[in-house]
Amino acid sequence: MINTLYLPELREMLAENDSDGLREFCTALHPARTAEFMEGLSPEEAWGVLDHADLSLQGEILSYFDYHRQVEMLEARPPESVAPVVATMSADDQVDLLGEVEEETAEQILACFSVDDRRDVLRLSNYEEGTAGAIMTTEMARLSENLTAREALKELTDQAEHLETIYYLYVVDDFGSLHGVVSTRDIVSALSKPQKHLSEIMETEVIHANVLDDQEDVLRKMADYDLLAIPVVDEELRLVGIITHDDILDVVVEEAAEDAYRAAAVEPLEETYLRTSVLTLSRKRGVWLAVLFVGAFLTTFALEQFESDLERIPWLVIFIPLVISTGGNSGNQSATLVITALNKGEASVRDWWIIMRRELAMGLILGLIMAFMGMLLALFKSPTPYSALVVPTTLVLVVIAGTLIGSMLPLMFKKIGLDPALMSNPFVAGLIDLFGIVIYLKVALLLLE
Amino acid sequence: MINTLYLPELREMLAENDSDGLREFCTALHPARTAEFMEGLSPEEAWGVLDHADLSLQGEILSYFDYHRQVEMLEARPPESVAPVVATMSADDQVDLLGEVEEETAEQILACFSVDDRRDVLRLSNYEEGTAGAIMTTEMARLSENLTAREALKELTDQAEHLETIYYLYVVDDFGSLHGVVSTRDIVSALSKPQKHLSEIMETEVIHANVLDDQEDVLRKMADYDLLAIPVVDEELRLVGIITHDDILDVVVEEAAEDAYRAAAVEPLEETYLRTSVLTLSRKRGVWLAVLFVGAFLTTFALEQFESDLERIPWLVIFIPLVISTGGNSGNQSATLVITALNKGEASVRDWWIIMRRELAMGLILGLIMAFMGMLLALFKSPTPYSALVVPTTLVLVVIAGTLIGSMLPLMFKKIGLDPALMSNPFVAGLIDLFGIVIYLKVALLLLE
Repeated sequence: MINTLYLPELREMLAENDSDGLREFCTALHPARTAEFMEGLSPEEAWGVLDHADLSLQGEILSYFDYHRQVEMLEARPPESVAPVVATMSADDQVDLLGEVEEETAEQILACFSVDDRRDVLRLSNYEEGTAGAIMTTEMARLSENLTAREALKELTDQAEHLETIYYLYVVDDFGSLHGVVSTRDIVSALSKPQKHLSEIMETEVIHANVLDDQEDVLRKMADYDLLAIPVVDEELRLVGIITHDDILDVVVEEAAEDAYRAAAVEPLEETYLRTSVLTLSRKRGVWLAVLFVGAFLTTFALEQFESDLERIPWLVIFIPLVISTGGNSGNQSATLVITALNKGEASVRDWWIIMRRELAMGLILGLIMAFMGMLLALFKSPTPYSALVVPTTLVLVVIAGTLIGSMLPLMFKKIGLDPALMSNPFVAGLIDLFGIVIYLKVALLLLE
Repeated sequence: MINTLYLPELREMLAENDSDGLREFCTALHPARTAEFMEGLSPEEAWGVLDHADLSLQGEILSYFDYHRQVEMLEARPPESVAPVVATMSADDQVDLLGEVEEETAEQILACFSVDDRRDVLRLSNYEEGTAGAIMTTEMARLSENLTAREALKELTDQAEHLETIYYLYVVDDFGSLHGVVSTRDIVSALSKPQKHLSEIMETEVIHANVLDDQEDVLRKMADYDLLAIPVVDEELRLVGIITHDDILDVVVEEAAEDAYRAAAVEPLEETYLRTSVLTLSRKRGVWLAVLFVGAFLTTFALEQFESDLERIPWLVIFIPLVISTGGNSGNQSATLVITALNKGEASVRDWWIIMRRELAMGLILGLIMAFMGMLLALFKSPTPYSALVVPTTLVLVVIAGTLIGSMLPLMFKKIGLDPALMSNPFVAGLIDLFGIVIYLKVALLLLE
């Protein structure tokens, strides 16, 4: 919901050219809240307000706008006047933003950057999405190991404004190789002995990420070690970037949403649900819905094989949905448990045998429970008590088929290098529908003929 | 996988009473890694190693053990000797840990705490799970607004060891009410004017959480404002706790896993998948599997009503699974999209009308696509081309039913105060199975008789 509280006031101040008022507005609140209150303004109006803040504050407020608004803003003014603002943003935000605007606009903006800044952006944009390189930014504190605590604090004070975080300071040698890390906390504590060199204070076992690491691994490290930030190095162990707590939090939240979409057979959305057009959304849903639909043709072919049998034993039909949905549900449970365990690093493909045994056991237990309940229902619906046995027998087998297929398929996918989450709910359910039909009718024919 | 690299060495050092070696081991690495290397030791062996570290390092290393191992450790020695170690841990970790051990052991350990520490623990453990109070801890920096920058830095240096974070410092008045926040960065930058009072440096618009806030809202604030930590206040705006980036990251990761479980109709696990016993897991799965199973009885009753019709038009049977799985898949997509949008704060119950219109449109588009493909298949399988029309007609209606039910049910649940994620995949699919059967056969009878 757009916050319209300040809009009338802001428009009034713009109309009256109330510079003091607008400057006050820009600096009064946290940039994220300032951005929030500006949501309803047109790009021209928004620039009119931002003009009253210094360049780096402009960049900060801009970085809190929704992406599509940032893009509108960048395209509302000539590249030359927009570039200085973008230049104040941190490199990872620059990369993301310039990746969204028109290519020509991005090039023109980049052309206005300093050589160093432009090089940083180009290098960062080359990293593959989902790797540490694609999340990291380049504004981290690099201190020489020869500095004393006091000197380090002084250098820090000077640089503080431009750094992503001053709380973890990376200690490097003359070649830029990462040698250690020292926290501002450590420096502050060491001020009582101000002549100590960083090389004596620093922690040499630095938990770090490699620029090509998967973002899941980066998350795991940061979560396990409670890290505020993690340094990123290249193959030669040279310090090339930093990933901070806020960026990894954004990654986790986004990943969780993407996992949820994929588990429902929806291509992950780029924008929010309400902001994605019906046509785009239909495409993202339609492609997988169609795949599943065609896959379900197999159930039609399978039932066709048994059509004459079903004509002979018509009461069997009424249990078809019950049987296949129960198999699908148990398979879905197994798939979700295994995929979640794989994602959290709590299990690996090597555990397949243990997992299979456990799932077999659970399939048996759950199958017997469902079979018991199913038997009660079937006794009311089948012509003879003996023929009712078809239902519980099928249920046990179908639930076991569900747990086995549901647990093994994600492991197989992971083994061959695919994302196990692709083999989730709808696909597992579709496969088990097929097995369920065949099992049900084979059991029926076996018992009743 | 247990890291066994150091185990032989550690056991040798224990056997030989190599104090220097063990002390070196405890202090050499990040406590999390030290804990990792100690994973394979028995509780007695582990205590033997930890005895060579000072109390607060013992507590730190202990806090990185898996929960069930921490519990083993606490129960392996008398409460009086364990209490001093637990006392060094941060209050939120104490609360979580003491909540896991036997009640009697927890009481005995608490009895050894100082009055203040014990009060903190008891107060924190009273907060309902899922609220800010249940996540927060109490070791935050509280500085008086009358201190100068220099005095604040001095006080910080003194307290630094005991604080959860020294990077955000909360400025309070004499009653403990939160008046502002100042970052160590700000203090460091202000050192050039060391006589400035905190009241002049501090930010008075402090983004904060209330102790009863839902953890989702806390996460939203921390993610939106890129906060390293958020202060928690009570109703009188008194500062009572702090939630740091690492704790909220843990919450997010845990929440994502719980959402995934619930969406598959599994009661969320307390332990990891492999560590949860087959019986416990069967219970967590069985309860919902049974609910869904009984719900699916309705499909049996529905098909019974149409049993004679199916005997008259037997070829209809082969399309039943195709029809109901397509409806279920489209409903699952809608439910997931809406639930995710609600969770991320991108949509609310008030948007129901917009959502319904969009879902109706998508249901039509997707339904027509599926209908087209279904028509092609049906032409091959039905006795006459005209009768084949039953299938595409049903598919359009069933997909629309899916999108409407799938999107509206989570909204209804949220409206009446329930977790919308409860109305997810398996339940939506079950409901649509029922609708699908009824729609299919009604359409068939309409067109063919």
